[in-house]
This record gives sequence, structure tokens and C-alpha cells, in this order.
Amino acid sequence: MEKRIVLAARPKGLPGKDSFRTEEFNPSELQEGEVLVKGVYYSVDPYMRGRMNDAKSYVPPFKIDQPIEGAVVAKVEESKSDKLKSGDWVLGSLPWATQTVASADDLRKLDVSDKVPAPYYLGILGMPGLTAYFGLLDIGKPQKGETVVVSGAAGAVGTVVGQIAKIRGCRVVGIAGTDEKINMLKDKFGYDAGINYKKDNVQEAIKKACPDGVDVYYDNVGGEISDAVISQINTFARIILCGQIALYNATEVPMGPRIQPLILTRSALMQGFIVRNYNNRFGEGMRQLIEWVKEGKLHYEETFVDGFDKLPEAFLGLFSGINKGKLIVDASK
Amino acid sequence: MEKRIVLAARPKGLPGKDSFRTEEFNPSELQEGEVLVKGVYYSVDPYMRGRMNDAKSYVPPFKIDQPIEGAVVAKVEESKSDKLKSGDWVLGSLPWATQTVASADDLRKLDVSDKVPAPYYLGILGMPGLTAYFGLLDIGKPQKGETVVVSGAAGAVGTVVGQIAKIRGCRVVGIAGTDEKINMLKDKFGYDAGINYKKDNVQEAIKKACPDGVDVYYDNVGGEISDAVISQINTFARIILCGQIALYNATEVPMGPRIQPLILTRSALMQGFIVRNYNNRFGEGMRQLIEWVKEGKLHYEETFVDGFDKLPEAFLGLFSGINKGKLIVDASK
Repeated sequence: MEKRIVLAARPKGLPGKDSFRTEEFNPSELQEGEVLVKGVYYSVDPYMRGRMNDAKSYVPPFKIDQPIEGAVVAKVEESKSDKLKSGDWVLGSLPWATQTVASADDLRKLDVSDKVPAPYYLGILGMPGLTAYFGLLDIGKPQKGETVVVSGAAGAVGTVVGQIAKIRGCRVVGIAGTDEKINMLKDKFGYDAGINYKKDNVQEAIKKACPDGVDVYYDNVGGEISDAVISQINTFARIILCGQIALYNATEVPMGPRIQPLILTRSALMQGFIVRNYNNRFGEGMRQLIEWVKEGKLHYEETFVDGFDKLPEAFLGLFSGINKGKLIVDASK
Repeated sequence: MEKRIVLAARPKGLPGKDSFRTEEFNPSELQEGEVLVKGVYYSVDPYMRGRMNDAKSYVPPFKIDQPIEGAVVAKVEESKSDKLKSGDWVLGSLPWATQTVASADDLRKLDVSDKVPAPYYLGILGMPGLTAYFGLLDIGKPQKGETVVVSGAAGAVGTVVGQIAKIRGCRVVGIAGTDEKINMLKDKFGYDAGINYKKDNVQEAIKKACPDGVDVYYDNVGGEISDAVISQINTFARIILCGQIALYNATEVPMGPRIQPLILTRSALMQGFIVRNYNNRFGEGMRQLIEWVKEGKLHYEETFVDGFDKLPEAFLGLFSGINKGKLIVDASK
């Protein structure tokens, strides 16, 4: 019997393990054009929290008693399609199940090598990498010499944002939740300064780390950290709204200082986006990211959690920040 | 002796008459290149409230015991400049004084006619008209068939915004504070619907007036009215921050629902601006506005308050909404 993990109940506030239930099941029989795949690397991402609510958003909600779904790198076990053969690596939006029958048309065959290992397609060469690339460059438009602040800087998106900003010649300041992460930002990813929001007064720390103010703010977290950064924006600043993880578990409408007066007087821009808005430019983004990876200009960090059964636990860990870089569940271990 | 009105004290919260003091003075003697002008039409504008605070903003604060300054249409009385002669109409950023000596270089000579009377240069052909034009078209980019909501719709900027949106083929909904203003929006300016925020539940009224949601929100007021509008924005909505008059008299940082989650999930854009950002395109804006006025596509409303001494009272009236369209003090009466 195979295993799958379903949404047991819609969480109120921070989800717990009781939001999930593991079931046994038998995969359906292969039809023409389908393949049986075995999940190897499972992506857990903050945006999935939104799908646990029964609310209008940019992706439809998960259904109660139906499997959670996300990006999975899998290996083809059996094929009734001439597009894929046994042993191929594929990427798809797949259920949290140990095995899945899927149409070959819904899967992307991956080019895996020593330089580009399979899990990269969930991170630096997947949605997080493209999210960093398009949000920073298309909305943020960072110019040489400008100051870029990144919240959630040690996460899958943030680690890439900072490096692209450095490639563009900016001063880059990252905000994260442990000194270990701050050290990683500076030592591995070239950040100019880091702020530990659990220890530092963020507003004072931003003033110190950004003596010329903040030109671009790439926001993955929202809430009070963002209040502090936004209070320091320059005229014509750009604020990129990529994530608001601090607010995802809110049970009431979160309140905060009104930001419009500051956005107005600074002639600033704030824009939200999801990576899917850039669907028709994914090719461009991937080519550039792969080039930077091969040139050694873009480094990458992954945190692996071993075992399919650990998927709920790993997902919940996003909200306490257990990960450095991209958080991936490795079901082969 | 001439009269001038100075800032007597910085107000906390809503200013009162004690924020101002009228003084007598003698204008200085004319130097070469200077003219003596007599103020006729004085502009009072919400943004001037910001200059009464001692705070960093896009224009420097007024100084205690120094005259309030604003846009004034004046007539030249005496000239020691070959650029201007007695009787010319001019526009300048001038003190609230019955007479002023100014450098001819700091004044703009106006072309006044029956079709384009002098006070127009404080409104539809002045900063408010250009503010409406650039904010709506450059940031809002309204497309045919889209729904545009305007707050402060009956004011100097709002009346122009709605008409330009109609010229662009949009459905236009205005928010104002009296039924008389709502009627004016619909009858004189072609708004499709109006919401009286003092009587209606704005959120419910927006839902009803904007069955297809809100694509563009031109915001002159901020605060709870804006919360209600923003709750109804569509994917890829544009929010233009032009004014936040509801918050100008706040004595503490105003709190409200955090808007970032909505901006994010709707891939929306919010941008603040001041008209001066478009300095190098004023010619284009003026030409288009004058053309629309002459073609009868752009109508205009002014509220006059008579008497130089009434300047403080008229200014304070902006915050209770005494004006329909542009509020001007006529010192000739």
C-alpha cells in the first residue's frame, strides 16, 4: 500500500499536526498517456498555508479529505507514454503521495546533472528562483549603488534575491531570525549586513545598516518587520510584496500603522505579484539563473528533512524558520 | 499698509484660527527685475496642512511668524522688469499677502480670456488638473471598460479625475460627503454612480456600484473610506495615492487593517506621487487639458470665498468639505 497525506481539517491560526492525516491507498491503473511516478523531493512553501483556508486567492483551496498538493520532483517508475520512460526525472504539481499516476503532459522532464542536481528544480531553478528573479528585477528595478533590504532573507527566495541584487551592484541588507542565518547571508551569499529581528530593534538596525535609506524592499514576511523597514524608505522607493508569512496564520484582519501617508510623501511604489504572472517569461528567467549558477555567481542553500512522513512537520517548520534556504523533504531517506 | 497672514503656531491635530495671525506690513522697494503684484485669487489646498508641521516631506515646512505661501493668481501693479508690465496676470508661489514684491523670473505670465478665465490656473489648468491627469493616466493606466473609483471625488482633483476616466471609456464611481455633491458628480461630471460616505456603508455601496470590482482607485482621502474600496480591488488593480486628507490632522500614527496581504494576493500596485514628479511633462498635460476644456469635454467647478481675510477660514473648510470643486479665495471682493 502507498501513503498519502490529506487535509484533515482547515486550521484556524497556526496549523498543527491535526490539520493533516496520513492514509493508505492503491494507485489507480495506468491509462494510455499516463505514467506512475515515485516522489523523491517534495517542496514545502509558505504560500501553501493560504490554500488551507477556504478563501478566494490566486490558487484554489485544498479540499478537505483530499491530498495536499505541491511541487514534487519525482522519478518515473512505469510509463504508458512515449514522452517519458522509466527512470526519467520529472517535476510536477503533485499530491503528497508516495506514488502518483499522472498524465505525462502535466509533467516536465528534468535535465539532471552534477552541476544541476534534481532538488535545484524546487528552489533556485524552480518557483523560488523565478520569484526572486522577476520580483526583484521587474518590480524592484534595482540600480547600481542603491540599497536593497530583503526580509525572510535566509529563505528559498531571499537567498536568491540578495545575490541578484549584489550582481546588480547594490548594497544588500538581509533580515533573518538567527545569528547562524545572518552569518550565512554574509559569508555565503555576499550580503553587506544582516539584522536578527529576534534580537535587534529592527528600525534602529535598519537606520544603521542603511545610512542612505532604503531604495528597494523585497518583502517576504510582512507585519512589524515590514513596518520598520518601510519607515526608512527613500523617495521613489519600490516595495515588492512577495510573501507575508507573518500574517498567514492570522485569525482576524491584522492591524498596523497605515502606510499610505509614507508611500504618498515618498512617491513610492508597492506592488504585489505571484510568479505565475511571468509565465510567458519563465524561459528567460531560467536561462539567466542557470547561467549564473554555472558561472558560480549564484550560490544555493537547501535544508533537507528526511522521510515522506515528515512532510507536515517540515511544512509547519517554515513558520518557526527551521530552514536555511530552500526547505525540501527527501522521501528517499 | 498691506496685510499678510503668518503661521502663528504649529497646530496639533486639526488646525484652528489661532494657527494664523494677520499682520500689517509695507512691501519692500522694487529692485531691478522685480514687480509689485496684487493678489487676486488665492489657492487653498489640502497639501498645505503638511507644511504646517515641522516634518520632513516633499515641500519644506512653513516657518513660524512667516507668511503662509501657496499658489496665487495676481495682477502686476508696478514693474521694473521688461518681462512683465502693469496689468499683466501672473501665477506664482506667493505669500498670503495683499501685495508682494517678487522677481519677474519667479512668475508665470498667464493667458487669460473668456474661455480660460484667470482662476482656472489654480484648478483645472493648474496643479489640481495636472495632478488628476498624470496620476490617473500615468499610474492608473485606465483601460476602456474598467471600473475607476475616486475618493474626494467632488474636490478640485477628483472632479477632473472622473471626467478623464470617462473620456477613457471607464465606469466611474465617486465618493463624496453630501448628496448635493453626489448629484453634481452625476449631473455635471458624468460619474456613473456616487457614494455618500456620511450616509452609506461604503463597503456595501462599493460592492453594489462596482459589480465587476475595482480596477483603478484614485485616492484623495485615505483612512476608512480607502479600506472599504481597497477590500474590493480586482487582480492587477492600480491604487493611486494622491492625498490622504483624512489623516493629515492625525496626532498619532494612524492604525488600520494591513493592506499588504490583499495587494499581494491581487497582484495589485499602489503608488504615491506628487505632481512635481512630472515637471518635465507639464507642457503635454496643459495642452491636453486646455484642448478638452475648449472641446467642452472637461467641465469645471469652483467654490469662491470672498475676501483676503477669509483665507484661514477657507483653508480650514477643506477639512469639513465646504467646497465643490476647486476652493479659491477671491481677494478682489
